[in-house]
Amino acid sequence: MHIQFLGTSAGRPTKSRNVTSAAFVHSEPASGFWLFDAGEGTQQQMFGTKLKLNKLEKIFVTHLHGDHIYGLPGLLSSRSYFDGAGPLVMYGPPGLRAFIDGVFMHSGTYLEYELTVTEIGPGVIMDDGHYRVTADELVHRLPSFGYRIEESAQSGQLDLEQLARRGVEPGPAYGKLKRGEDIILPSGELVRSAEVVGPPVPGRIVTILGDTCPCENGIALARNADLLVHEATFESGMEEKATAYGHSTVRQAAQIAADAGAKQLALTHFSSRYDDEAITELIAEGQKLFPNIVAAYDYMELPVPRQSS
Amino acid sequence: MHIQFLGTSAGRPTKSRNVTSAAFVHSEPASGFWLFDAGEGTQQQMFGTKLKLNKLEKIFVTHLHGDHIYGLPGLLSSRSYFDGAGPLVMYGPPGLRAFIDGVFMHSGTYLEYELTVTEIGPGVIMDDGHYRVTADELVHRLPSFGYRIEESAQSGQLDLEQLARRGVEPGPAYGKLKRGEDIILPSGELVRSAEVVGPPVPGRIVTILGDTCPCENGIALARNADLLVHEATFESGMEEKATAYGHSTVRQAAQIAADAGAKQLALTHFSSRYDDEAITELIAEGQKLFPNIVAAYDYMELPVPRQSS
Repeated sequence: MHIQFLGTSAGRPTKSRNVTSAAFVHSEPASGFWLFDAGEGTQQQMFGTKLKLNKLEKIFVTHLHGDHIYGLPGLLSSRSYFDGAGPLVMYGPPGLRAFIDGVFMHSGTYLEYELTVTEIGPGVIMDDGHYRVTADELVHRLPSFGYRIEESAQSGQLDLEQLARRGVEPGPAYGKLKRGEDIILPSGELVRSAEVVGPPVPGRIVTILGDTCPCENGIALARNADLLVHEATFESGMEEKATAYGHSTVRQAAQIAADAGAKQLALTHFSSRYDDEAITELIAEGQKLFPNIVAAYDYMELPVPRQSS
Repeated sequence: MHIQFLGTSAGRPTKSRNVTSAAFVHSEPASGFWLFDAGEGTQQQMFGTKLKLNKLEKIFVTHLHGDHIYGLPGLLSSRSYFDGAGPLVMYGPPGLRAFIDGVFMHSGTYLEYELTVTEIGPGVIMDDGHYRVTADELVHRLPSFGYRIEESAQSGQLDLEQLARRGVEPGPAYGKLKRGEDIILPSGELVRSAEVVGPPVPGRIVTILGDTCPCENGIALARNADLLVHEATFESGMEEKATAYGHSTVRQAAQIAADAGAKQLALTHFSSRYDDEAITELIAEGQKLFPNIVAAYDYMELPVPRQSS
């Protein structure tokens, strides 16, 4: 499981950073990925990665500002060219469906696959048994959402050595034990699940917020997250301007991560006024409040490690 | 005066070719440019050129298919960031204004400059004294236009040596002669304009067509053009498929250039099925009908020489 950043610039693209998009890639090597926002040129950015549009399963849109959505129509259209592109579900704020429908109507676009656009409100917006996604509203100039992805816990590992020693044969008994059921062997011996199955492995939590001022909902969504992806449009000290434009500074984003008890903070959505060198320098101010910060850059792959590993 | 191609792929971008856009650059070093179409990523393509959005004066849209217009909203938005970005005029088929208005309404976009969207029909759509642009309808699945740009003729050069010999002083008399008026010197001598002014330099003609099947209007727009930019979505021999999709083959585009008496043909809008090597090979078939063909590629700068030079 990792995040790959496809665009990390705010407002407009620069030579080295495209406008906002991030891929949430499930696990190597063959499985699918989700996109969070798709600024103009997101499909072209994918040419520099291993991501293929037929592996794209879901798109989560944080808000409808152009630098987060102008890449959607082209990306959705191009996906029709990919063999095996199955149904696609897109989540986002009210207005998303009308935006897509309007663009496709004017451009005479028809997709070769089924697209479902789900306009969301606060709460659990999907749960496929493996991932549960919760959305909540942030504070921006347009309705803007944050997303909390919770991976389900994995059941514990079987103690194969002990099972062999006690004469439990591989087969249905293994499944029962793994599901938490106790079994009785032909010898009459009771084997308790708790004796031969390790503790469950907790799922990981990844929180990706849209453009926002610092807010309580952002902290709640990021509570104990293994990774928080937060915007940092402006440098520390520019809080007044950030507030006026509905954005956050590096320092404010670091404070959110600290307040939420997150494990790691990835900053993105940097104003085009900052070059790569400046961005590296900006981070230091945030690290006084929250040490484990990385500044995202285009194509960066950021793994989300298991806490137990 | 030159054309710089910013995207030469049909339908979707490839690793080496972006979707359609071409810049018509007036003259070096400082003057402005026009864009013909703007597929997704056109603003990013400009990072690889000398083109700056504050020098963009007009946009001509051939038709509303996504691979020709999905770059407009982002490009128009980003132009607000450029110092000195003056009013912008955009021409295109009916529906263009509603497309832009709809996208900007949903994304809450306001421009920092004046944008005028003019929905066109056949005929002269602009004449600023230096360039006259004529549009006409082509044959495609959506209304698609071609544009003929006619540069005005430049008045001939004054024969300065003869003027000095005959005692004509620099000043208002020069202007009169240059404008075709005859003058009488204080000595009573008649100086005829035709005696001291060389022949006018004819203006250049550049024709840029949108997606189309071969058609009479295309030939008329390209009549005697110094440069014809024509789509060639498919290879020669695929005329049936080209017709079904409202496109042209290499051979058909070459025939249009020959029928129009154009001086040079630049092919663009190649199906993503062709790699760069294949495109080079495709040209040969067209050159049997019209020798002076170039296959456009992204960032290619194609000068439009004066016929007299």
